[in-house]
Amino acid sequence: MQTVERKIRSKRAVVGVVGQGYVGFPLAQRSAESGYRTYGFDISVDTVARCEKANRFHNYKAVLTPSALRACDVLIVAVPTPTKSEGGRHEPDLALVINAVRTLSSCVINDNQPRLLVLESTYAPGTTRTVVAPMLAEAIEAGRLALGYSPERIDPGNPRFNLVNTPKVTSGIDAAAAWLVNRFYSQIVDRVVPATNLEAAEATKILENTFRFISITFAQEFDSYCDRAGIDAREITNLASSKPFGFMPFYAGAGIGGHCIAEDPYYLYQSMLDLGMAPHILESAIENHEARAGVIVDRIADQLGGRPIAGARILLLGVSYKPNVGDPRRSPAQPILERLEAEGARVDYHDALVPRFGGHNSLELKTARPQDYDLAVLITAHQHLDYDALAGAGWRIYDTRGLIKRTPAGAALSEEGPFVLSQGQTLVEAGS
Amino acid sequence: MQTVERKIRSKRAVVGVVGQGYVGFPLAQRSAESGYRTYGFDISVDTVARCEKANRFHNYKAVLTPSALRACDVLIVAVPTPTKSEGGRHEPDLALVINAVRTLSSCVINDNQPRLLVLESTYAPGTTRTVVAPMLAEAIEAGRLALGYSPERIDPGNPRFNLVNTPKVTSGIDAAAAWLVNRFYSQIVDRVVPATNLEAAEATKILENTFRFISITFAQEFDSYCDRAGIDAREITNLASSKPFGFMPFYAGAGIGGHCIAEDPYYLYQSMLDLGMAPHILESAIENHEARAGVIVDRIADQLGGRPIAGARILLLGVSYKPNVGDPRRSPAQPILERLEAEGARVDYHDALVPRFGGHNSLELKTARPQDYDLAVLITAHQHLDYDALAGAGWRIYDTRGLIKRTPAGAALSEEGPFVLSQGQTLVEAGS
Repeated sequence: MQTVERKIRSKRAVVGVVGQGYVGFPLAQRSAESGYRTYGFDISVDTVARCEKANRFHNYKAVLTPSALRACDVLIVAVPTPTKSEGGRHEPDLALVINAVRTLSSCVINDNQPRLLVLESTYAPGTTRTVVAPMLAEAIEAGRLALGYSPERIDPGNPRFNLVNTPKVTSGIDAAAAWLVNRFYSQIVDRVVPATNLEAAEATKILENTFRFISITFAQEFDSYCDRAGIDAREITNLASSKPFGFMPFYAGAGIGGHCIAEDPYYLYQSMLDLGMAPHILESAIENHEARAGVIVDRIADQLGGRPIAGARILLLGVSYKPNVGDPRRSPAQPILERLEAEGARVDYHDALVPRFGGHNSLELKTARPQDYDLAVLITAHQHLDYDALAGAGWRIYDTRGLIKRTPAGAALSEEGPFVLSQGQTLVEAGS
Repeated sequence: MQTVERKIRSKRAVVGVVGQGYVGFPLAQRSAESGYRTYGFDISVDTVARCEKANRFHNYKAVLTPSALRACDVLIVAVPTPTKSEGGRHEPDLALVINAVRTLSSCVINDNQPRLLVLESTYAPGTTRTVVAPMLAEAIEAGRLALGYSPERIDPGNPRFNLVNTPKVTSGIDAAAAWLVNRFYSQIVDRVVPATNLEAAEATKILENTFRFISITFAQEFDSYCDRAGIDAREITNLASSKPFGFMPFYAGAGIGGHCIAEDPYYLYQSMLDLGMAPHILESAIENHEARAGVIVDRIADQLGGRPIAGARILLLGVSYKPNVGDPRRSPAQPILERLEAEGARVDYHDALVPRFGGHNSLELKTARPQDYDLAVLITAHQHLDYDALAGAGWRIYDTRGLIKRTPAGAALSEEGPFVLSQGQTLVEAGS
């Protein structure tokens, strides 16, 4: 492994990143920028083409065949860990991780070259040691594969924190592997934080995202209370943000979406159940999350003022999973759209960043007339839309984000005053 | 009311603070320091004597008779709002607030003098308007009493934030009252944050403390998970703190204590029930909180390694409700002590700041020998004790705070590294 370390330090190491999505591509780009010849591997032809187009470095190459990674000294797995559901509660789905490791094991890690392999995917503590390591036992035992784990902390659209200036937690299956992981990431990010072992690093990521999940779902519970009490949850959260210690603002919106906050807590939950626990707080939070679309549809019904949802004409505004991002996967708009259509509503949507969604094409707002709709529902608030102007133009809007007539359009992210410390993150909270 | 405002601005207003505990006394002192002649009223002879002794200003006077407040232009109620329990779940107990207002109404606010009355006690949204205001209806309707609400945010022992540099949320029953409240607090604190109405200000305080309650109880649930999984919750929380956005560290300890975090959530919970809600997240958090002493006693049993609790000799270290504070009321040590004794353990305690607790006197550590105890249990970690030295001297310690052998004694509050942003607050988290 000294060879690998020397190559890492001298930038002669070749790096391969498996998965070129919103985690793997920036990582591979940063690796190339840091001076490493870097391959970005993905099984999707579209993704590889998109990466080649977006690539900014001569020493990066997107590839479709895993054997192209044979030259790599450092391999990083950055594939999604979604959840699956067969009618019941969502459960962890490690298939993509397992496939990636299996592919690497059979196509790449079958020679005598010493390598470092790091997983960045989010999953339950113990997974690297008990699921991943056994698949690579021969290479690990022969001393030619160092196995590590370092959770990704990418927050798409975050204007302030990126891969480089967000500290990176690192770990390895043994001290030598931990040291190598640390050496590699020290070359590409500003700060590395070593964990005692793989399980601590795995649990760190799960805790971070479950903390946000618990906080947002409680914000949703508090929002339901405020709604009944006739008080304004958003104002109250802003006021509470003036407390300079012990408080962090989270806002309720149309629901929690994205690939992290809406998925990772299920990994912790399943792991808790596996250990025989009855984790009532997390369970209640998951129930709140899963019920949120129903709460929003109930409020839409209230907003229709007596008119039934069946036959009502509704325009959804913003359907991506978070503001200013064009990704609609696991968006809270999805279950809301499905429920509205199941109840017989005639639904259109507008999202300039999402051309197609739920079987519809994005509607041009210019051609839409307020009188053709009973209600517009602001789901995800992109900065480019002037919601106050829409409201002023005669649209009846149910504003799940509480933005209209509070801040000038486009200023929602910056103009809430000096005490709303995390207001910049506000619109991001309900996302990944 | 213009008279009152002029007097406030010219510092000729006389101020009376009802309740001279850890909220009212600092407030009255600051009022006096700001130039107002100030009376601090309390029904306890001991408290009044203590305040007179601790007083630092010639224009402050502690009084035992409410009629002494007749000269006051500004009256502030800062009495506790505990919970009561008759076997079942804890419920809000507004008796002290109601008594204070009733006393003011009959002994002070019964002349023609215009006054401002502000409540600082924590209670459910709507309480000022529907419980307090009707008791003062005559004076309010006659235009000689302005009624306001401004929640206290005192955090005893917080080395950084105090009354003056913590922004103060203000509100009034009408615009004129809100303006007066704002004027008064502007004179004594650095920054005032006006709320839209009484209910928003009331809800702000409840949200702040319930957020902490939810976060700490989830930390407790996560701690139970880590305990079963054989991983270190404290290390993981520290690692997660290296994330510069979206995370705030909360640590599990022996349980949540104090007069705020352990009490206020019951006010919100009751209010939610009153509105017909089924607030499962908060309810699960309350259940977790109420079960915590049992979890700790179970772990004590584990630590005894087969020896039964009945007859075991146990020394509790630290019994106040938070570190470096001598207040043992609503300390998590209380239910732990009660359970241990109920199960037949022979329990002593040591707390240099709490001379008497649960029918025991604090034991001198110098005279205690490790071999006389089966286990010491670190409940509340005061900075003046060297826990590592204790462990080194042969004491077997169950450390609910996870401090021993991690940081040098006395340095626990400052030496956890640059990324543990709120580590300074850590030991405070489980308190008020």
